[in-house]
Amino acid sequence: MSRPTGLIASKGIELLTWGTPNGYKVSILLEELKEAYGLQYTTQAINIMHNIQKEPWFTAINPNGRIPAIVDHDNDELAVFEGAAILSYLTRRYDPDHRLSFAPDDDDYTRADAWISWQHGSVSPYQGQANHFLRYAKEKIPYGIQRYVGETERVYGVLDARLKDRDDIVGPGRGKYSIADIALLGWVNAISFTTISLDQFPAVKAWLARCWERPAVQRGFTVPSPTASTPLKPQEGEAAEKTRELKQLVDQAKEQYGYKYASP
Amino acid sequence: MSRPTGLIASKGIELLTWGTPNGYKVSILLEELKEAYGLQYTTQAINIMHNIQKEPWFTAINPNGRIPAIVDHDNDELAVFEGAAILSYLTRRYDPDHRLSFAPDDDDYTRADAWISWQHGSVSPYQGQANHFLRYAKEKIPYGIQRYVGETERVYGVLDARLKDRDDIVGPGRGKYSIADIALLGWVNAISFTTISLDQFPAVKAWLARCWERPAVQRGFTVPSPTASTPLKPQEGEAAEKTRELKQLVDQAKEQYGYKYASP
Repeated sequence: MSRPTGLIASKGIELLTWGTPNGYKVSILLEELKEAYGLQYTTQAINIMHNIQKEPWFTAINPNGRIPAIVDHDNDELAVFEGAAILSYLTRRYDPDHRLSFAPDDDDYTRADAWISWQHGSVSPYQGQANHFLRYAKEKIPYGIQRYVGETERVYGVLDARLKDRDDIVGPGRGKYSIADIALLGWVNAISFTTISLDQFPAVKAWLARCWERPAVQRGFTVPSPTASTPLKPQEGEAAEKTRELKQLVDQAKEQYGYKYASP
Repeated sequence: MSRPTGLIASKGIELLTWGTPNGYKVSILLEELKEAYGLQYTTQAINIMHNIQKEPWFTAINPNGRIPAIVDHDNDELAVFEGAAILSYLTRRYDPDHRLSFAPDDDDYTRADAWISWQHGSVSPYQGQANHFLRYAKEKIPYGIQRYVGETERVYGVLDARLKDRDDIVGPGRGKYSIADIALLGWVNAISFTTISLDQFPAVKAWLARCWERPAVQRGFTVPSPTASTPLKPQEGEAAEKTRELKQLVDQAKEQYGYKYASP
């Protein structure tokens, strides 16, 4: 693949993304909108290991230099960055029947906004930092490991309590599948990377399995790479061995700092 | 003050908050709406050191157990949590003339949403973790210190670039003061806590001074405690000495890990 150097489409939505939990929320929504309304979009893979997201043409679209970002060629080339804002924009503009969202004068619009903000400001920062201290930091720092794995467990406890008597995060009765669910999918699907097992959060585990039944979710997880992500399942081989080693580090770090699970 | 045990108002907005950067964004907006439209609100101080935000009556309002949260007694006791969702709700419902926000069909609504999401998912997590590693963690961990102070500098670089040719973060021309500015005020005003000086970000410094000229901003910073916060100014005495010591730690940590400032 050649290195992206600018926008390539002239109509529809252009999605600039990479196969990460924050990227998937937008590709899943775009697949849902394509299925529901025929909305067209074009994807460019932005390899974040090559820092394409820091190049001037990209930061003119997202000054924060991060994926995902979109440009709406059917709306005067409007650029939108930050996953939460993209989900809101795309549904306000392209989901007139509220099949994946709620009407702005419906209190569930506000509730979805609250849960999406919670994903954006708690789940993603904590789980992201847990991944950093476990997998990417050049040295293993027990304090950071137990702090962020612990905070990730705390927020998954909040989610598990929310889903105990519901099918979906927001909506009347047992809920309606919406952008509040879509915002979380990529993160929950990657939870085993942090050594946390969804067996500890059975309502979250059941919710994730239900979401994976949707064809648009399955397709969204293949953007931008066809082999990008698969449903959460027990790891095998080397990956499982690595996670077992990391889990020992987590347990030792928790013991060292007297960690006790509590939620919220 | 007695310990809060439940809601106390029966009309208007009830704000549950504490004197923190995330709390101030809501009290500032409520002061602005009071000034613009006469909107009434009642405040309860939720002392987070006493874990009142973890009690069942509070988590029924915000299942994540964090301030700020609001209950709208004039809208069927709707509870809203997460600062970004509260700013959006209050302006959609109580700012019909868009004096502090943008109309939902205006692209600046989406741009404000993006910048607020950026504050919510980048500024606040990074600056919050910088404070944690510098001030609250029981041991000083150089890796964590330089990582989060460094990321905070990066995002302030993004903000400084945005404000170079503008007065306000979003809006036509040089911008219009809005919830996109309000979302950031509490965090920027507390930046010296991280040892970072706004002298490094002159456009941000000038923006903060402009915002402080607004009476509603001044009043918002006194909620829930009349002596809660004052305009950013050079620290003095013991506080300045403590920050100088921490700044040495930051500089050593940066050198140890080969930190180089870059933004974005």
